[in-house]
Amino acid sequence: MRDVCIIGLGQTPIGELWDTSLRQLAYQALTAAVADAGIDRPEALFVGNMLASRLSDQAQLGALLADTCGWRGIEAATVEAACASGGAAFQAGVRAVASGMADVVAVCGVEKMTEATSHEVTSGLATAADADYEVAHGITFVALNALLMQRYMHEYQVPHEAFCEFSLNAHKNAVNNPNAMFRKSISPEIYAKAPVIAPPINLYDSSPICDGAAALILAPLEVARDLGVDPIRVKASASATDCLNLDDRRDLLSLDAARASAQKAYAQAGLGPGDVDVFEVHDAFSIMTALSLEAAGFAEPGTATHLAREGAIAIDGSVPISTMGGLKARGHPVGATGVYELADLVTQLRGQAGQNQVPDAAIGMTQNIGGTGATVVTHILTRE
Amino acid sequence: MRDVCIIGLGQTPIGELWDTSLRQLAYQALTAAVADAGIDRPEALFVGNMLASRLSDQAQLGALLADTCGWRGIEAATVEAACASGGAAFQAGVRAVASGMADVVAVCGVEKMTEATSHEVTSGLATAADADYEVAHGITFVALNALLMQRYMHEYQVPHEAFCEFSLNAHKNAVNNPNAMFRKSISPEIYAKAPVIAPPINLYDSSPICDGAAALILAPLEVARDLGVDPIRVKASASATDCLNLDDRRDLLSLDAARASAQKAYAQAGLGPGDVDVFEVHDAFSIMTALSLEAAGFAEPGTATHLAREGAIAIDGSVPISTMGGLKARGHPVGATGVYELADLVTQLRGQAGQNQVPDAAIGMTQNIGGTGATVVTHILTRE
Repeated sequence: MRDVCIIGLGQTPIGELWDTSLRQLAYQALTAAVADAGIDRPEALFVGNMLASRLSDQAQLGALLADTCGWRGIEAATVEAACASGGAAFQAGVRAVASGMADVVAVCGVEKMTEATSHEVTSGLATAADADYEVAHGITFVALNALLMQRYMHEYQVPHEAFCEFSLNAHKNAVNNPNAMFRKSISPEIYAKAPVIAPPINLYDSSPICDGAAALILAPLEVARDLGVDPIRVKASASATDCLNLDDRRDLLSLDAARASAQKAYAQAGLGPGDVDVFEVHDAFSIMTALSLEAAGFAEPGTATHLAREGAIAIDGSVPISTMGGLKARGHPVGATGVYELADLVTQLRGQAGQNQVPDAAIGMTQNIGGTGATVVTHILTRE
Repeated sequence: MRDVCIIGLGQTPIGELWDTSLRQLAYQALTAAVADAGIDRPEALFVGNMLASRLSDQAQLGALLADTCGWRGIEAATVEAACASGGAAFQAGVRAVASGMADVVAVCGVEKMTEATSHEVTSGLATAADADYEVAHGITFVALNALLMQRYMHEYQVPHEAFCEFSLNAHKNAVNNPNAMFRKSISPEIYAKAPVIAPPINLYDSSPICDGAAALILAPLEVARDLGVDPIRVKASASATDCLNLDDRRDLLSLDAARASAQKAYAQAGLGPGDVDVFEVHDAFSIMTALSLEAAGFAEPGTATHLAREGAIAIDGSVPISTMGGLKARGHPVGATGVYELADLVTQLRGQAGQNQVPDAAIGMTQNIGGTGATVVTHILTRE
């Protein structure tokens, strides 16, 4: 098994990009990534996408986007694991390189969500849940997260306002990210007065419906050195699953798949949570931020909001999260998100995060969560 | 890179399986496959599926099916490349083992097509084509294949009846396959009188809308030996792409992706078409059979129907194809088809094909085609 590195990065700004189609988004991110890597074309392309089949009537994105980029002929496929599609596609790319089957591989997460009706998007997102045991009864994906948040608040006696700091931190960090959707700070007052979407989840507990694409180029260490680029090492690539339906979970608040995938990743890298300088968390909802921080070992069960209150999640804290705005404020184009998380982490490890730079960031982790925790993909990256 | 083997096989009969749901289909195939391999559970699961998101409102099949099989926690994801999804998922499985990231890996192709309206299925299949440049103008997936067949007949002056033998051969072979959808022979008269679907494609030039699941278990050679099973070796795993839209192809009749993926596979295995004892072809439409046979090097351009006429494609011929009925008569549950092709080939290489056994079958090839040739995945398997 060969050591795998990230040698190129490209991304589009995230937003309601009415004038940019699905293939144009991917084209922009992918061509920027190959230019950044200084290569002509990859040998293979793995696409992370969840909703194109429903919202854009388009399957087979692998071949489509390879051709769009002028790389007709290369190997390509799409990898899907709901909101963890980007992380799962990246893992497929890592394996293609690690196994020696390809040298230079591109991974692109892309999602175009704003060209459909709200009903179509809500129904599409609900496919991340169990169609027979959850969605058939009328529950939406937001409502499933609301059940988790309500349970958390009850079980640990945590008030709703305790989650506020997660949103404040994400919005504050998005201000300096030119690719972020919401480049504005919010205050505790704004959070407290936000409209409730599915109680107790309010507008600022939720990430937005949006469009975007991010891309990374992978290569073995020796190729990276030949190219003279400053590679970022992939030290761990691990995933784990749980049941989709919440009613059958061992413990509603433990996110077993997040725990298992983090533990596998720590074992692969020979590291622990104390070694991680940056953690790009899957903050699709503020309850997911708390559950992921706890499952990954950064906080004891029920105490993640303490980390936030104490400032540990800030850029200069002990566990900086959502450093470029996170899903909450950078944006959450669902199938692309896992690649955006990795892109933000690469930006940190390269020391290119500007005002949001985590000092001396050398080891970072991402956790990309599908559904309410059914598929979780964890990656650990290091500065070489 | 480790040598990869197939150590277990399971499949459901293909048909209009009204009483079996998507997850039940996969459960039956996967539990049969692990029982066949003599293992408890795999470490990872890769699912090949195209249409569940649209037709069953269900994404994230990896986690769902792992849990359904009682394997909660293992790594899992879905791989999609339209009708080549099964082959692409198998390739992901091969890499997970080859790279050393997992030892025992399951691959399942599954599709549930009959619980939707004809309109929903037709629209779903059309997502394999280019939504903007083809489908927006009203063309269906059958009609795209009809354009290819018409061009072939015109270019090479081949009459429609010359394609008859492909269907006759497939139907004849399906009679002895208990898992086949259409276990009945047809005659040239029946073929000639069949209703036309999209001229010149008639009912017997087309594969059926159906349900089914097939599963394979992969392991490195040393694990296979420890288990005492008779492994089938994966000697080549290669894919290539082309543009989705026919109007932009270099040559409408050359199937460049099929040619490139076959050539890569031959190079990996150190073999050529003359070495192949069985070829499980992607006979979704009889024109695809002809184009794939030519692209893979079994016939010169324009001459594939000669192979059929001369009996070369029969069980005792020089290039036996569709040996268990093929997509035409065994059935074509689209995202599952690539795994069924591999399952049929494993059956041949194990010498378990009964009355359809190709004598001394030692080297076999499958070609799984997405869309009208936009993604093509080729595998070469050998008896150890």
